Amino acid sequence: MNAEWWLSPAAVPSATRMQAARLRQGQLTKPPGSLGELETIAICLSGMQNSDRPGIDHVQISVFAADHGIAAERVSAFPQSVTVEMVRNFARGGAAINVLAQMLEATLEVINVGTAVDPGPLPGVIDCRIAPGTANFRRSPAMTPTELERALQCGVEVVERASQNDVDLFIGGEMGIANTTSASAIACALLGLSASTMAGPGTGLDNAGVQHKVVVINETLARHRLAPDDVPCVLRHVGGFEIAALVGAYLRCAQLGVPVLVDGYISAVAALCAQRMNAGASAWFFYGHHSAEPGHRFVMEALGARPLLHLGMRLGEGSGASAAVPLLRMACLLHNQMATFDEAGVSGAL
Amino acid sequence: MNAEWWLSPAAVPSATRMQAARLRQGQLTKPPGSLGELETIAICLSGMQNSDRPGIDHVQISVFAADHGIAAERVSAFPQSVTVEMVRNFARGGAAINVLAQMLEATLEVINVGTAVDPGPLPGVIDCRIAPGTANFRRSPAMTPTELERALQCGVEVVERASQNDVDLFIGGEMGIANTTSASAIACALLGLSASTMAGPGTGLDNAGVQHKVVVINETLARHRLAPDDVPCVLRHVGGFEIAALVGAYLRCAQLGVPVLVDGYISAVAALCAQRMNAGASAWFFYGHHSAEPGHRFVMEALGARPLLHLGMRLGEGSGASAAVPLLRMACLLHNQMATFDEAGVSGAL
Repeated sequence: MNAEWWLSPAAVPSATRMQAARLRQGQLTKPPGSLGELETIAICLSGMQNSDRPGIDHVQISVFAADHGIAAERVSAFPQSVTVEMVRNFARGGAAINVLAQMLEATLEVINVGTAVDPGPLPGVIDCRIAPGTANFRRSPAMTPTELERALQCGVEVVERASQNDVDLFIGGEMGIANTTSASAIACALLGLSASTMAGPGTGLDNAGVQHKVVVINETLARHRLAPDDVPCVLRHVGGFEIAALVGAYLRCAQLGVPVLVDGYISAVAALCAQRMNAGASAWFFYGHHSAEPGHRFVMEALGARPLLHLGMRLGEGSGASAAVPLLRMACLLHNQMATFDEAGVSGAL
Repeated sequence: MNAEWWLSPAAVPSATRMQAARLRQGQLTKPPGSLGELETIAICLSGMQNSDRPGIDHVQISVFAADHGIAAERVSAFPQSVTVEMVRNFARGGAAINVLAQMLEATLEVINVGTAVDPGPLPGVIDCRIAPGTANFRRSPAMTPTELERALQCGVEVVERASQNDVDLFIGGEMGIANTTSASAIACALLGLSASTMAGPGTGLDNAGVQHKVVVINETLARHRLAPDDVPCVLRHVGGFEIAALVGAYLRCAQLGVPVLVDGYISAVAALCAQRMNAGASAWFFYGHHSAEPGHRFVMEALGARPLLHLGMRLGEGSGASAAVPLLRMACLLHNQMATFDEAGVSGAL
């Protein structure tokens, strides 16, 4: 692909279909507006799928896993070894996302974009290791320009395969010890906020741990002095392979017209990067849940986003987005299958 | 049944099972607490079902339909004929709850506890008409003591059948033009709040319509002077047949140990009645969603309840509770099927 492939225009949901869907919602046997967000979802999906009868049959969940050099600064409650241990757990079917994908009858794949340790071949895991983790960005940029390009490209290729398989909905997940530190550093750089606003406990830091994380992020930002409008530069300096892969995936979804259900905090930061790199991209994004991570709401505000679920989840892996999939399916079925006032012989409003 | 059958003790969820479930949640391969409310649901269901591996296979949705004399005071945006028209729509499968029940593979039944017009025999509709609607409670009590007893009993019988069929989760729905007025009057009487706090647009009143509804409710409350601690008396004076049936159903669920997923505003008012009639009842209640009806939050506060979904829904029929069923199922599957740290060879927190 050319150097700045992400500038190619995003697809545009059909305004005509959305208007038709809006009209239909007003004719279904219920008080107008009484299905709330479920009506909005059906209307948006009608536009995205360019269909009067939208549907979410084939869901693909792609979990990107990678390690972070910044983990050496003790910014996580769990040791770095957990990243590759969880990749093995995904391969054996024992993680939350395995259970959710099975329930949803979704396609699940795991993409290793750079664990510190090579786990060797594993069933259901695609080996795209760029490096054994990023560099420690407290001391040097996390990635080289080539590494960033490869990480973005990895996400692009995942989505191009998904699109060929007629996926109705794409969910990107992530796993990577210390990646809330990377995501917080990116969000601070893009939004001009202090780390004390953005950083949270992640997998379970105590207050002292969060304070240390804040110091690490603020020092990093002071060292790199990143321009908020140069998103690739921000990603290269303080990002992670799995976060960059998510950015590439989201951008390519928007270009190919594949609806995206964004997961929690880290995914939302990737969505913000994608939207800043191509403003039309976010027309393809739904937001699965509001993460318990405190920085999430600032990212949602910047995206003008309203997450569907508020369950205090903070697991990643695509789990919060997966939890919201039944709502999208319900929205479609209600839109497609309910009787209209005319069909049912039900009187309208007085 | 004896006169005050509802005073018989509610069943008590197993504290031992809940503690075991809490321990298991801490051993599953995720940061402790990171599944948020899904963890709480699994822990509560373990206690309710007295099982280490809870599950929500068999869901029953029972929609109670009835008319309200207060509809004559023009407190609804829709004509009274809609109640029976919607009962016919339920029978033909065209309503929102039909679509949701099918998606959830739930048992759906409709109980006509008193539409103004007799629709005759309809498939899937049980005829328990107590009267052709309640009396207009602006002028006289809504029900006679016998009518109230029959409405409560109707809910009891529905749940006793469900319990014999090994239902894992009971959802009560309602349909009845003007029933937000009845529900608001009940809530005002129980909580000592003014109608201006509690009343909302219901199916879609404009501001003037809501103001009129407030006047009707306040006049009604001034006329009847109801004691807040005599819930049956409140129900008889300003309740509805379908609301009383829900109260009976919820109370019997609690006595028989059947978990309940409460729907929106009207159902929540019925849940509050049940809890005030038997304090142990609410240990069996989950709350499906936060209704767009403004009074709902006061009822939730009085119940100490946290609804699962916040989607701006306000349809009734059990639709908001049904939308939350997949979350309960996910909670169980995650609890039952995820690997533990030991099983997966994943390191714990530092």
